[in-house]
Amino acid sequence: MPHIELPAEYPGIRSLFVFRPETAAPLCNLAQVLLHDPHPTLSAGDRELIASYVSNLNTCNFCTRSHSAIAKHQLNSDLSLVKQVLADPESAPISEKLRALLRIAASVQLGGKNVTAEEVEDARKEGATDIEIHDTVLIAAAFCMYNRYVDGLDTWQPDNEEFYDKMGAQRVREGYKPSSINVTLTKELQTS
Amino acid sequence: MPHIELPAEYPGIRSLFVFRPETAAPLCNLAQVLLHDPHPTLSAGDRELIASYVSNLNTCNFCTRSHSAIAKHQLNSDLSLVKQVLADPESAPISEKLRALLRIAASVQLGGKNVTAEEVEDARKEGATDIEIHDTVLIAAAFCMYNRYVDGLDTWQPDNEEFYDKMGAQRVREGYKPSSINVTLTKELQTS
Repeated sequence: MPHIELPAEYPGIRSLFVFRPETAAPLCNLAQVLLHDPHPTLSAGDRELIASYVSNLNTCNFCTRSHSAIAKHQLNSDLSLVKQVLADPESAPISEKLRALLRIAASVQLGGKNVTAEEVEDARKEGATDIEIHDTVLIAAAFCMYNRYVDGLDTWQPDNEEFYDKMGAQRVREGYKPSSINVTLTKELQTS
Repeated sequence: MPHIELPAEYPGIRSLFVFRPETAAPLCNLAQVLLHDPHPTLSAGDRELIASYVSNLNTCNFCTRSHSAIAKHQLNSDLSLVKQVLADPESAPISEKLRALLRIAASVQLGGKNVTAEEVEDARKEGATDIEIHDTVLIAAAFCMYNRYVDGLDTWQPDNEEFYDKMGAQRVREGYKPSSINVTLTKELQTS
């Protein structure tokens, strides 16, 4: 049961967006820029993989399942690839650049000072740009926030694969802007 | 030395705002709502204490010193009170409600699942409202992001007490909106 009185029909972070729209707006806008807006070089699928990987390290069930589903739809892949990345990025069939960025993300999850010059240099050798390194650090840091927010208030988290899959497809179509999130909340509830 | 090429004259998170204005906007807007905008019951000073307390737990020097200075100016206090809260909130001369909220913030810093129903109940007994509990969790979670962002890219952090004090007074006057941050960056550099 959530630690505060949240609207019971909304899962995870969405119940918090409805509870406090003032903070929902910048939180949604940040996700939109980091994960959905066009990026010079890092695909939305790869950015979602970083988000779900960090959420899994933080053992946040809701965010891991949500962003795994979004990654799957962004990559036109299936969930087993995403699960492979989460379980062991070192052996997963991904680019060496993404593997190096995931190592940086794992260090950020432990704490900012854990990122080493060597890790950054390794990513650069695989072709990572300054913006890619910056965005990897900020996506990882941001999910250390979103995960703590969702679990710290003990929000309701559905245990229904179809829910996450449907929502994943919807986020790919509509993004994270506060207006999209509000509209799709209603639509989703109507069709589920 | 920072892990990526940042404008050398800007310290800490500001160098990152200049590097990537697209993410600066929602990051500044989030700080504005959480720390500076009028709040039904939680003073800006108490909210800044939560921010600096969590930054200190994350050993983020730049954020701890910045938000300690802002807390000092918001509370019309001196820095020794802020340092007392950071060192030992259990014995510091603060309200029992704030003490209970700081316990929740410390749990969030460790990870969202560490927040217990007992901690929340204790805060409620001291008069904490749902919005206060929500905002405490989100401030603590947000600083787990800002701290990792600042340290994860190894930004330049001045070691000059006067810099933090002057910047603290400025944030109290002008808030965190992206427009204020941009204007004051220039003004501060001109007068320092």
